[in-house]
Amino acid sequence: MTEGGTTENARKPIRVAVAGASGYAGGEVLRLLLGHPSYADGSLVIGSLTAGGNAGSTLGEHHPHLLPLSSRVLEETTVEILSGHDVVFLGLPHGNSAQYAKLLPESTVIIDCGADFRLQDPAAWEKYYKSTHAGTWPYGLPELPGAREKLVGATRIAVPGCYPTAASLALAPAVAAGIVESHVNVVAVSGTSGAGRAPKADLLGSEVMGSVRAYGVGGVHRHTPEIIQNLSAAGGKGISVSFTPVLAPMPRGILATCTAATTATEEQAREIYEKAYNDEPFIHVLPAGVFPQTGAVIGSNAVQIGVTVDADAGQLVVISAIDNLTKGTAGGAVQSMNLALGLPETAGLSTVGVAP
Amino acid sequence: MTEGGTTENARKPIRVAVAGASGYAGGEVLRLLLGHPSYADGSLVIGSLTAGGNAGSTLGEHHPHLLPLSSRVLEETTVEILSGHDVVFLGLPHGNSAQYAKLLPESTVIIDCGADFRLQDPAAWEKYYKSTHAGTWPYGLPELPGAREKLVGATRIAVPGCYPTAASLALAPAVAAGIVESHVNVVAVSGTSGAGRAPKADLLGSEVMGSVRAYGVGGVHRHTPEIIQNLSAAGGKGISVSFTPVLAPMPRGILATCTAATTATEEQAREIYEKAYNDEPFIHVLPAGVFPQTGAVIGSNAVQIGVTVDADAGQLVVISAIDNLTKGTAGGAVQSMNLALGLPETAGLSTVGVAP
Amino acid sequence: MTEGGTTENARKPIRVAVAGASGYAGGEVLRLLLGHPSYADGSLVIGSLTAGGNAGSTLGEHHPHLLPLSSRVLEETTVEILSGHDVVFLGLPHGNSAQYAKLLPESTVIIDCGADFRLQDPAAWEKYYKSTHAGTWPYGLPELPGAREKLVGATRIAVPGCYPTAASLALAPAVAAGIVESHVNVVAVSGTSGAGRAPKADLLGSEVMGSVRAYGVGGVHRHTPEIIQNLSAAGGKGISVSFTPVLAPMPRGILATCTAATTATEEQAREIYEKAYNDEPFIHVLPAGVFPQTGAVIGSNAVQIGVTVDADAGQLVVISAIDNLTKGTAGGAVQSMNLALGLPETAGLSTVGVAP
Amino acid sequence: MTEGGTTENARKPIRVAVAGASGYAGGEVLRLLLGHPSYADGSLVIGSLTAGGNAGSTLGEHHPHLLPLSSRVLEETTVEILSGHDVVFLGLPHGNSAQYAKLLPESTVIIDCGADFRLQDPAAWEKYYKSTHAGTWPYGLPELPGAREKLVGATRIAVPGCYPTAASLALAPAVAAGIVESHVNVVAVSGTSGAGRAPKADLLGSEVMGSVRAYGVGGVHRHTPEIIQNLSAAGGKGISVSFTPVLAPMPRGILATCTAATTATEEQAREIYEKAYNDEPFIHVLPAGVFPQTGAVIGSNAVQIGVTVDADAGQLVVISAIDNLTKGTAGGAVQSMNLALGLPETAGLSTVGVAP
Repeated sequence: MTEGGTTENARKPIRVAVAGASGYAGGEVLRLLLGHPSYADGSLVIGSLTAGGNAGSTLGEHHPHLLPLSSRVLEETTVEILSGHDVVFLGLPHGNSAQYAKLLPESTVIIDCGADFRLQDPAAWEKYYKSTHAGTWPYGLPELPGAREKLVGATRIAVPGCYPTAASLALAPAVAAGIVESHVNVVAVSGTSGAGRAPKADLLGSEVMGSVRAYGVGGVHRHTPEIIQNLSAAGGKGISVSFTPVLAPMPRGILATCTAATTATEEQAREIYEKAYNDEPFIHVLPAGVFPQTGAVIGSNAVQIGVTVDADAGQLVVISAIDNLTKGTAGGAVQSMNLALGLPETAGLSTVGVAP
Repeated sequence: MTEGGTTENARKPIRVAVAGASGYAGGEVLRLLLGHPSYADGSLVIGSLTAGGNAGSTLGEHHPHLLPLSSRVLEETTVEILSGHDVVFLGLPHGNSAQYAKLLPESTVIIDCGADFRLQDPAAWEKYYKSTHAGTWPYGLPELPGAREKLVGATRIAVPGCYPTAASLALAPAVAAGIVESHVNVVAVSGTSGAGRAPKADLLGSEVMGSVRAYGVGGVHRHTPEIIQNLSAAGGKGISVSFTPVLAPMPRGILATCTAATTATEEQAREIYEKAYNDEPFIHVLPAGVFPQTGAVIGSNAVQIGVTVDADAGQLVVISAIDNLTKGTAGGAVQSMNLALGLPETAGLSTVGVAP
Repeated sequence: MTEGGTTENARKPIRVAVAGASGYAGGEVLRLLLGHPSYADGSLVIGSLTAGGNAGSTLGEHHPHLLPLSSRVLEETTVEILSGHDVVFLGLPHGNSAQYAKLLPESTVIIDCGADFRLQDPAAWEKYYKSTHAGTWPYGLPELPGAREKLVGATRIAVPGCYPTAASLALAPAVAAGIVESHVNVVAVSGTSGAGRAPKADLLGSEVMGSVRAYGVGGVHRHTPEIIQNLSAAGGKGISVSFTPVLAPMPRGILATCTAATTATEEQAREIYEKAYNDEPFIHVLPAGVFPQTGAVIGSNAVQIGVTVDADAGQLVVISAIDNLTKGTAGGAVQSMNLALGLPETAGLSTVGVAP
Repeated sequence: MTEGGTTENARKPIRVAVAGASGYAGGEVLRLLLGHPSYADGSLVIGSLTAGGNAGSTLGEHHPHLLPLSSRVLEETTVEILSGHDVVFLGLPHGNSAQYAKLLPESTVIIDCGADFRLQDPAAWEKYYKSTHAGTWPYGLPELPGAREKLVGATRIAVPGCYPTAASLALAPAVAAGIVESHVNVVAVSGTSGAGRAPKADLLGSEVMGSVRAYGVGGVHRHTPEIIQNLSAAGGKGISVSFTPVLAPMPRGILATCTAATTATEEQAREIYEKAYNDEPFIHVLPAGVFPQTGAVIGSNAVQIGVTVDADAGQLVVISAIDNLTKGTAGGAVQSMNLALGLPETAGLSTVGVAP
């Protein structure tokens, strides 16, 4: 590439496409891009917005909160339409990303909000997703040990699942420090947007309001192997995870209650967490005795974490709160994009939530 | 007393008073009494309704849903006013029941919805409630091994806490059968009415809607020793309990996710639960693969339980759902009253919830 | 039929079928029947439960709150299956009732929770429902002037719409007394169950929680002509109605705010309402200065009404609250059944709500 | 002031204080300031944060979503502490602003989120607020005819009430164009944060979830005279307003349903609204047949408006949606600050909401 080209490139705005723009992940990516400083200064432009069944309708019909884009018409999700963009966010049902990844140029930064490229172990993929493993991409959770450097300049990124984001960040420091035994317990309460926007009777407002329910009970939820993978990478060899997701009557947010047998004291545990996350711009370890609420992180990319030790029960208890659509999906995606493109990692992402 | 008197007594209706009638426990006791067949046939009458600061106001100002009683004026909670009733429900702040218990006749059936007489161990009481132990009364959870017979004809009854009701019924069969080890983990998501009706900033609708938060984290919640007591009684000697309560944006309901290491198979575990609860009118073990939601038990005295084993993680996972105000408080109280008075145990209590 | 047969019939229990049992209307009819004294004493039995696409599944999969019926298998909705019942509740999509009505015996009491037979004016039907008018049946709102007597012994009953129930009962006394002019304004906030159980993206929990929205704005909602019909029957000749329904984040309940120009004083207005509803078992006119909340009528058949006059604006303001599924649908249906069968009108119906 | 001083001033950052920082209005002002470009570039700094009873605690205890300020300690609200700031936002209970206004320098820009200086008519103030009228300040609703120019360079600004913001913007164009008669009807559904953060039993989550209720019925709500004042200023001489606020189970948002008799056609009405708001950056008139939902404006300063005419009823129906804390309070306050300081009016304010 010539200097002239470089110069010209430097002036050309980054063109970003969002596939699956009418869904929740796509909508949240767009919400964050609209507030991104590179969008404000014109160095990043929002190109094609595509959809499956909703192609042909306007974005405003699906996301009336994205006023500046409300008259945009959704195009069909095809390789042709996605080509010609520098960054492509994929918010597609699981199993649909590989086809676009193959045909788009290698230089295109593809950021997949789906599960297709998260798992390293083909056997785990096949067991939980009942299909052929598509491969493994750099994992878009920079706060995990060793993850950030693989994202810098990456052109293929697998955005973590929302539950694995909350659980892994809550447990990785303890696992890495060796203060917990080989079994951890995660009960994570989530808002309903994590279940997506496809209409299902059991996700109707009438069903979810005024009620909580557990689902995917007994280790069958697809995020279980992803949590195990992350904790293993953090040093938890042979770790076993009991994971129970619970659906709560709220649109957004995940609160993960994580417990594991420990002989550490609360002071030791807190020191480990504070040290681990001291330099992380999005992770906030709360003062002793304070525990997070999801309401404090809505719309933000923050992770709030409370740490204690139940000495009577011999258990480390760590509670983490994230917004499943922001840090748990689209915020993680934009954070990864920033790293991939060499932008400031925190650009367009806030630690300030919308409350109450 | 003459035989004639006895005969007349037999015709005299049972007079019931409710102390703390403007609170949630008191209101729910009244809701159930209004639907009780003994109230319908006149053999039970609702006598004095008393309150603290709300004395002098009408019940309708506090419980507009109790239309038949809406013009009743709340009296002061005093021994004099409570005397002359055959049954007295106490829905008072913790620490207030003993004074009434002492001064009311021994023949009066006192059913305490508060914590004062639940714990057997004075040391546990003092550690968690920071006051002198008042004593121990028969425990109003008939489904626990050995509990029902102590309630028949009892005149002093301690209604269990809402979380211990959900957690103990979820875990007791496994503990009694010896299929779990000496540690259990309980994460229980509750509606807000469990926190009572006293105005607090962090219980405002603006704060709780759209948010979940853990509280009493690290074994410090007062229901911890009560759960341990129940599981110990079920056979779990030296059992340790990690208990984390979580507040969810809904008025009623508790969903308890209980896990414990096991080597049992799912079939073995299910058989134990089905056998344990086969004859219980209010406890329903769901079919394999089905787990409860709190929305299905609202307003009912039912306990719905789902049982599975996560073989990969070596964990028994039991999920139970109750209405914290019904089975978890006032329903348990009325069920206990029925046993105390020799009425059918299920009188006035339903397994049918109000949904959606 | 011989006298002996009559005698035998008198002993035979009433067999009740519910078509559309997996929907919200059907489920609520079943909830009420399970608490009906005729069900308790065996003089009414719950026969076939039928469904469309859900035929073959158990009722418990759709209504886990109806525990006593949870293992019942749903049958196909056909004339053959519905035949042989004394009472048939229809909870079917609009336009489907006429076919069953034609083929079932005339002696069968058919209670249609759908709209097909509500409107008297074929032109209004065709304008709002875009199909041929099926006819008009006695209208199941006994509290409207002249309605009750037509329901006694009826074998075909059209259950009112939920909004018309709330609005008509709020306005009929003022219209009948002639204290309001020829235009009324109704803004009615409803819970989501009124929109039914068919999965739609805009009824997902994620969409409805944390948001209110108006729909059917500008007089296009199908309940508009029904409200006009009721108020016209109450004496409001040539009355015009501006009706705006608003969807709120709650499963149940309707709060109708009704305004109309008046020269009456508040005292005059209150006297009219108190007189009109003094003998009605389900309608409760609240004290001066008190206005209803939907939370106080959930699960009950009560109608709570608040009346005032805004003298500065020259407006009568009447607020009514109902449970859209109970008084607004299934409660009205059971109340009508009671009248049709000669049972006490209030049997199985309560004025006590479930709160909080 | 010398030129040198001017130059120095130009470099000095604007110091902003927030009184009542632990309340909802104060918290929202801070949320917006943290995202303001002048805060980002250092030309605006957040100075003292003050409180009443909460003085001495950290901001994080009250607003855990404002992470960057969470360790800030709240000071006492006194003139001394507020002095030395260039801009002071007041989020105080009604009746408390005048004392600070008197003693702070005239050059200090005081932006009062309370009601004290909104009304022009002392009689209206005394009737609705039962106290002495403090005066009238420029009204912080720039989109009302004639309002914007009074805000440019102002040093005293009265932020409008949340309901008047929604209702006045919905009705002003029709009133100004003379297409509605002399009476308008407003039923406005609001989230609970509008009622503030002081703990009250009827605002507990248990009370508000699952229920809607009207309050301030019959023209007694204090926002009634403010709506009348705004519509009168828009040209509606002698206009009467029937205003009914309704509390809904959500933290934020107002949906105002506004009706008034008209002979205009829908096309005429829509043209008037589109013309009136064509150049307004925050007001968006939705396409024909589309009506707003509050969920689309949460966290944003946008006003979404739907307009139609119910020809059968002869009524103009206008629905507006705002976030009561943003455009309805703190967003309007920051928009006014921008005008007062000569910053771009839209700085720090978005038309993009957080949804779902």
